[in-house]
Amino acid sequence: MHTSLHCLLNPRSVAVIGASDRERSVGGQVARNLLESRYAGPVWLVNAHRAAVAGRPCFQSVAQLPDAPDLAILCTPAPTIPGLVRELGARGGRAVVLITAGLEAPGEDGRSLLAQTLAEARKSGLRILGPNCVGLLSPAIALNASFARGLAPPGQLAFIAQSGALTTALLDWACAQDIGFTHFISLGNASDIGFPELLAYLADEAATTAILLYVEAITDAAAFLAAATRAARAKPVIVVKSGRAPEGARAAASHTGALAGADEVYDAAFRRAGLLRVNTTRELFEVAETLARCPGIQGPRLAIVSNGGGPAILATDALIAGGGQLAGLAPPTLAALDAALPPLWSHANPIDIVGDAPPERYALALREALADPGNDAVLLIHAPTAIVPAELIAQACIPVMRASRRPVLSCWMGGGAVSAAIRLCSAAGLAVYDTPEEAVEGFLQASRREQLRQSLPALDAVPVPAPAGLGQALAALLAPVRQARREWLTEPQAKAVLAACGIPVVGTQTARDVAQAVALAESIGGRVVLKILSPDLTHKSDVGGVALGLAGAEAVAAAARAMLAAVARNAPTARIEGFAVQPMIERATSQELLVGIATDATFGRFVVFGAGGKAVEVLADRGIDLLPLDRAQARALIRRPRIARLLQGYRDTPAVDLAALEEVVLRLSLLASLVPDLVELDINPLLASAQGVIALDARMRLRR
Amino acid sequence: MHTSLHCLLNPRSVAVIGASDRERSVGGQVARNLLESRYAGPVWLVNAHRAAVAGRPCFQSVAQLPDAPDLAILCTPAPTIPGLVRELGARGGRAVVLITAGLEAPGEDGRSLLAQTLAEARKSGLRILGPNCVGLLSPAIALNASFARGLAPPGQLAFIAQSGALTTALLDWACAQDIGFTHFISLGNASDIGFPELLAYLADEAATTAILLYVEAITDAAAFLAAATRAARAKPVIVVKSGRAPEGARAAASHTGALAGADEVYDAAFRRAGLLRVNTTRELFEVAETLARCPGIQGPRLAIVSNGGGPAILATDALIAGGGQLAGLAPPTLAALDAALPPLWSHANPIDIVGDAPPERYALALREALADPGNDAVLLIHAPTAIVPAELIAQACIPVMRASRRPVLSCWMGGGAVSAAIRLCSAAGLAVYDTPEEAVEGFLQASRREQLRQSLPALDAVPVPAPAGLGQALAALLAPVRQARREWLTEPQAKAVLAACGIPVVGTQTARDVAQAVALAESIGGRVVLKILSPDLTHKSDVGGVALGLAGAEAVAAAARAMLAAVARNAPTARIEGFAVQPMIERATSQELLVGIATDATFGRFVVFGAGGKAVEVLADRGIDLLPLDRAQARALIRRPRIARLLQGYRDTPAVDLAALEEVVLRLSLLASLVPDLVELDINPLLASAQGVIALDARMRLRR
Repeated sequence: MHTSLHCLLNPRSVAVIGASDRERSVGGQVARNLLESRYAGPVWLVNAHRAAVAGRPCFQSVAQLPDAPDLAILCTPAPTIPGLVRELGARGGRAVVLITAGLEAPGEDGRSLLAQTLAEARKSGLRILGPNCVGLLSPAIALNASFARGLAPPGQLAFIAQSGALTTALLDWACAQDIGFTHFISLGNASDIGFPELLAYLADEAATTAILLYVEAITDAAAFLAAATRAARAKPVIVVKSGRAPEGARAAASHTGALAGADEVYDAAFRRAGLLRVNTTRELFEVAETLARCPGIQGPRLAIVSNGGGPAILATDALIAGGGQLAGLAPPTLAALDAALPPLWSHANPIDIVGDAPPERYALALREALADPGNDAVLLIHAPTAIVPAELIAQACIPVMRASRRPVLSCWMGGGAVSAAIRLCSAAGLAVYDTPEEAVEGFLQASRREQLRQSLPALDAVPVPAPAGLGQALAALLAPVRQARREWLTEPQAKAVLAACGIPVVGTQTARDVAQAVALAESIGGRVVLKILSPDLTHKSDVGGVALGLAGAEAVAAAARAMLAAVARNAPTARIEGFAVQPMIERATSQELLVGIATDATFGRFVVFGAGGKAVEVLADRGIDLLPLDRAQARALIRRPRIARLLQGYRDTPAVDLAALEEVVLRLSLLASLVPDLVELDINPLLASAQGVIALDARMRLRR
Repeated sequence: MHTSLHCLLNPRSVAVIGASDRERSVGGQVARNLLESRYAGPVWLVNAHRAAVAGRPCFQSVAQLPDAPDLAILCTPAPTIPGLVRELGARGGRAVVLITAGLEAPGEDGRSLLAQTLAEARKSGLRILGPNCVGLLSPAIALNASFARGLAPPGQLAFIAQSGALTTALLDWACAQDIGFTHFISLGNASDIGFPELLAYLADEAATTAILLYVEAITDAAAFLAAATRAARAKPVIVVKSGRAPEGARAAASHTGALAGADEVYDAAFRRAGLLRVNTTRELFEVAETLARCPGIQGPRLAIVSNGGGPAILATDALIAGGGQLAGLAPPTLAALDAALPPLWSHANPIDIVGDAPPERYALALREALADPGNDAVLLIHAPTAIVPAELIAQACIPVMRASRRPVLSCWMGGGAVSAAIRLCSAAGLAVYDTPEEAVEGFLQASRREQLRQSLPALDAVPVPAPAGLGQALAALLAPVRQARREWLTEPQAKAVLAACGIPVVGTQTARDVAQAVALAESIGGRVVLKILSPDLTHKSDVGGVALGLAGAEAVAAAARAMLAAVARNAPTARIEGFAVQPMIERATSQELLVGIATDATFGRFVVFGAGGKAVEVLADRGIDLLPLDRAQARALIRRPRIARLLQGYRDTPAVDLAALEEVVLRLSLLASLVPDLVELDINPLLASAQGVIALDARMRLRR
């Protein structure tokens, strides 16, 4: 028995409910799309008010249908939808494409039409794509169950989109470029079927070798990440996520009704799942071209064959800027090219075969480059010359490119002079790009995706185990906070939690008043730091609540009194519980870092690592990753911010203790897993040097 | 009388030397290009061995020509070129397109053929484009004096390229896209006519409203900058400079024989001249489309009309990421749209008119957006729908767009479904882009260029005058260095120079030996810094030659002895002249900055400003500008590096004294102008705080 999802994407029979003859109606377009294609299964048209549509007999109701349709496409007004879904479910229908919009209106029983529809579907197990979607296409079975025109050629890419406009645009582009697809799926509001189920299905569908997503907002993050990770292990999954800019995010929110999460958390989530993110429609087109026509790119080394120096340099610029590498040429390759090419050739990669190169020279250079083991792919670039028509060059090169097991890409620059060459290459199934930089970007995306895939943790990876008794110890430390129904821990409380997790913290003692603070400072000795102690103040330095480097009783007493006055002035309502006193830690050449935990509305808690100190917001230098993370992920995280370069050591400054940093990140991950109501945590600064790390200040918040 | 450059670009008569009937010969192609076009002047074919070419009578020599040709195109073998140039010059020829390559070979008199050719040209005043170029095209007079096929439509853009391949590619693209040009000019090796003269000419040519450049390397920087600045004041000048990556730069070097300068110096030079730099071929196409079809963009505020939410969000993302702004909608605009659009419309910019919008709705929304005074341009985005053909929408919108005085851009997404709409818009002279992001990028480039133009200094700006006597004072300070023929100044010498210029420096005294150092430290009092004094050591800390925060005679003596030992070990050949002793400057919340001067092989001396300290290379956080600079340029420079955000102040840390920083940069500029042989200068660190700035260390080098 087929699953409902299989019936949705590969139905054995289709009904159009609301089929029509009207020129500009959705029901009419859906009916025409199905009837005019070579879809082999029965197509039943239903319209309560017509005996015939498009010259074919028409059924007046679902009840009259000869059999239950695997897939029904609903184009009728919103109030009819709950009843139709009930009828279809009762007859044994399996799936519905719900094109109708406006189901938010309340129905007879006060519930929205959408809620009624979903309830009816649940009763029978019938599944729904939509509402408010364009529909779906499965070119392999010539199925166009949408109101978009055209049917892309059958192929190996699947596209799932949270935008009807992107669906129709990519479909129309694919038709024009002859790029083959297994499915185009327009999710609409995704009230029932969403990304997770479709990703899981497509992960297993052998015919689909790569998946493209257009995402505006993820709602079920856990299910999405699980399915996306599974799919990305099996095949390339590429995502365009819009709403990068806050303004864009607002537009997305008004568009889908779902609040878009912070963009960098999406970045972290996609990376974690092994999804390759691209930012623009053009990049989506490029990556589609590469995945469909040039699979198998395994690394970053590119060889370039060009008949012009300028385009070759531009390609090289794009390659290096994008993190790729110019492949070296092996001595036998150099020797072969020296023997065959005119003396003016570049004698290196890029292989500049000179403007007037005849077709045979292109073919020879390509063959040599493809035979060289030192590259991961070869890019052919041609700029038009009046001397040799591009078409002849394409004819000479296509057999070489088709015979190659090494991936090969081509770029034919210009317009009319190269259109025949582009047509020939495209018809031969070869990857073609308009500009050198776009060809390089297509290559780099495939190469980056391979790198991402390799970075996915092993399937049998186990999380770091918690030391025995740590859970209870933390519960005991947090009990007073929870009992007092407080959100924020005091600084000493937060430090005690960190210390329990094995994170080095500077010893901090609390004093009730000025006299006790002075006594503590004298017992600590040397220079000390004095901070105000209040459950209401988390940014203490902003209100004059921090004094550094105090030496001697007099200085401490004066600072404490001044602090009380400043805080009373700047934060008059704050409850003052006394002072925290700690030794002043002064380590030459140490770095002030920030490590912390924050909570995203969509993806939950994540860990932040970056430059710390008072200017942390101004510096805005941080990497993030989702929780929990393993050692490799912790290691990758501490290399992500710009400050990572300083941590490696420079000149006579040794590297900081990177292993200790890694350990702090891992222990925060452990802490988060043991304290589910921990929603916010800042260690800032975490002082890091070659001698180790130490937390000088900490803020921690529990969900109230 | 016409100038030679005018005769080159607008010749009244043309001769092809080396014209031929052969199918794949350059001379054949050039002859065909001229004969098959509507060029109105006489075209004379010259071939010593043929009586007729292309069915037309052929002259056997320059002497036989009925008159001196304004322009001669030379396609004959290299050894014939010097003689031909002599003959042409003697007859009164004005300009030559020298397509022939390989003129580096020596001629009869031992000089290269190129040197002979240039000498002959100088004698007669005949000017040469090339050698080794594709030629030039001037579509307005239907002149194709090149071996590239096709003739772009006449228009308003000029293109000058250091790459034949880019010339033929852009030409072929322009023909296909129907983008009009005044001239395509392939520079080849630019042995005579180069960028400067052509820029100066095109700056004044009224028919050319914008200039596009493809640059691999600039050789005559001063002339280039003068001409480019003049041109950029008059009209948009856009430049693609390849060789951004070091690898790319190498390829450029081998390609043109000129060493490419550091890429960021090119950036600074282009910015200084008011040239807008773009990085890729696609961006060049986009900006050409915008400049040719959508002139007049004055600011960064864009209104977007779209029939799909997804494309509108992607456009918004690109707009915000690129520094643009979503335009607000004025209340009357909102009211008019509310009255006319269905209730589901987005009620904000982007104006989402909903997928099924009929043509009239597009036209109405466009009209309202174009009437709103709050935007600098309007972008129309259409994704295909099966319900309304794009062609009908284009027909409804084109009159609105053509009637608009506000700039308007359009993006028709997809392939076949939108091709008719694209053709219609293109034929109407409207700007059309393939994807929303590219349309936005086209808009942003025009807006950025306007911003650049506004940032150009006033023509009557005068440089900061040097205080009386400063020149003599500097000469006196530098005399001992020059007399000793030393390159590097000692630290006290360098600081004395800075102090003479009015830059605050920490007082530094020199001691011959340990005892004198101790005595100096005691006279300074408090904590001191001790540094080794040697004409051979510029990176003193690397060899153990710096000790910070020494308090008391014992500590100073111990550190001085340890320093002598360390330096003897690490730099045994360095001549030791003693110690420099200075007070230890400790300012809370001060920033360590770097200000300096360096010398670029192409553009000469430039000023650097950025993050300082020991990790300066690792941080790599700096802005640069060419010297000299005025106050506005100094102000812009100190805002360029990332650390600029910290300098503005944050939380309870006040802004540093930005006026004092500006002054330091201005005084370095003054110093450079007074000391022409100053080739390298580092002030690192320059300590900056709210209290002012002070140079703690300085290195300075004169050209030997």
